[in-house]
Amino acid sequence: MSSRPHLTNASAALTREVEVMDERGRISTIFIPAERPLTVYVDKRELVTLMTLGGAPEMLTLGYLRNQRLVRSIDDIESVTVDWSVDSVAVKTRNGIADIEERTSKKVVTTGCGQGSVFGGLMDEVDQIVLPADARLKQSVLYRIVDTIRTQQSVYKQAGSVHGCALFTAGGDMLYWVEDVGRHNAVDSIAGRMWLDGVSGEDKVFYTTGRLTSEMVIKGAQMGIPFLLSRSGTTQMGHMVAEKLGMTLLARCTGKHFLALTGRDRLIMEPHLADVLRVA
Amino acid sequence: MSSRPHLTNASAALTREVEVMDERGRISTIFIPAERPLTVYVDKRELVTLMTLGGAPEMLTLGYLRNQRLVRSIDDIESVTVDWSVDSVAVKTRNGIADIEERTSKKVVTTGCGQGSVFGGLMDEVDQIVLPADARLKQSVLYRIVDTIRTQQSVYKQAGSVHGCALFTAGGDMLYWVEDVGRHNAVDSIAGRMWLDGVSGEDKVFYTTGRLTSEMVIKGAQMGIPFLLSRSGTTQMGHMVAEKLGMTLLARCTGKHFLALTGRDRLIMEPHLADVLRVA
Repeated sequence: MSSRPHLTNASAALTREVEVMDERGRISTIFIPAERPLTVYVDKRELVTLMTLGGAPEMLTLGYLRNQRLVRSIDDIESVTVDWSVDSVAVKTRNGIADIEERTSKKVVTTGCGQGSVFGGLMDEVDQIVLPADARLKQSVLYRIVDTIRTQQSVYKQAGSVHGCALFTAGGDMLYWVEDVGRHNAVDSIAGRMWLDGVSGEDKVFYTTGRLTSEMVIKGAQMGIPFLLSRSGTTQMGHMVAEKLGMTLLARCTGKHFLALTGRDRLIMEPHLADVLRVA
Repeated sequence: MSSRPHLTNASAALTREVEVMDERGRISTIFIPAERPLTVYVDKRELVTLMTLGGAPEMLTLGYLRNQRLVRSIDDIESVTVDWSVDSVAVKTRNGIADIEERTSKKVVTTGCGQGSVFGGLMDEVDQIVLPADARLKQSVLYRIVDTIRTQQSVYKQAGSVHGCALFTAGGDMLYWVEDVGRHNAVDSIAGRMWLDGVSGEDKVFYTTGRLTSEMVIKGAQMGIPFLLSRSGTTQMGHMVAEKLGMTLLARCTGKHFLALTGRDRLIMEPHLADVLRVA
């Protein structure tokens, strides 16, 4: 009985132009990214307020419910209705959420941007996650992914101060691209899209412009994705969790450069490519 | 009866060396920043778990309680005892926290790194905050601050992936410097130090390497600081709140460059300095 939930499509303006004065007293204007509150109501119960860019509020809401493990299946969701006039989203479930009180009581304030509050039990789950050992990523595909990101149209290029996340096939084709003021909103929005479209992670590659902190690694694992790439670096706990999970963690991915931190056996190295000029 | 609380001094190792493989298959090691959970207990009640670098856990705890408005005065705190063997900090108050249940019930998941969970009422407070209109910042002092940050020894320079915050006098002398995996932990740690030392914000300048999101601006305002500087950019809500508060917001502060977004009347411009070579 997999019936797709009803969704609004309430994307809002992503940037705003503001006046600035520079070091020489010159007045000009720049674009800055939007940041707006989105209060999530589940079956009329206020759950949380997310601060978001507002580009994909329905996917963000779905991904939040998924990654917080508040809803087990997309089939349990009847509708997601965003109303920017009141900065809120109303989620209607088919059967309600069991013991929501208990499951939303424990707070973890994480390192991540955007989605700081993780309800309890995340680390408990990690031990049960098994990532595919036979998945492989070619260095040439890695370069294709990095180059796709480099040439991607983005709010970042216009306004800065946002994080981007993307999901790629093992062949290097980009399936989704989401930006948000917080990278945890961006990863949750990707998770929401995957959930809605019935896309699984075991043969996918996840890319983020943000740091590979513990929560980012855990979220990647929750989506079952064996490859986690970042333009940025990692933290001790992100590294530790990835090692524990056998996830392939690649940091500092820019141009032809990258640093493989964990799960290196999944990489098919083609070191001669490091010399080839980048193709735009 | 202002008696200073008893504090441990439980700074932990801030970086760890890990093995990496680069694009040519070369094995080497890099340093990555620590990231560890710190569960905060107030009068034996579990409050929250913060993910932190671990450099200033006592100050982080004090600043968190202050900025969340859970404790009104530093005098109400008897002791702050960090025990890394159990990744926790025990806070003992003199008189307990009134209606803590009610005040910790509302969750806002913010854009900011590090401290994502803000208990309710932050925005309600903003309207009541009045920042000093007569405070002034000279362009030459701004440059001195930026240069002090540039030459500051830091975990960032060794390991990357951390945010730094600093508090300066109106003359450009650095009082505090704190780094953390999340910039909201860093700003809270500064707030904790100010609280403990009885330092007020009205004649101070706050610097952060992170983005000027709504929560950063609100926290700066809560500390009564009229000047908020960042190497990075801002968001629409950060800009809006700063405008509302009449806070002086300076973004993209690097070298001789900066962009004054709001509160420009507090700036004493010396545009000829933009041509002078940087003094290290």
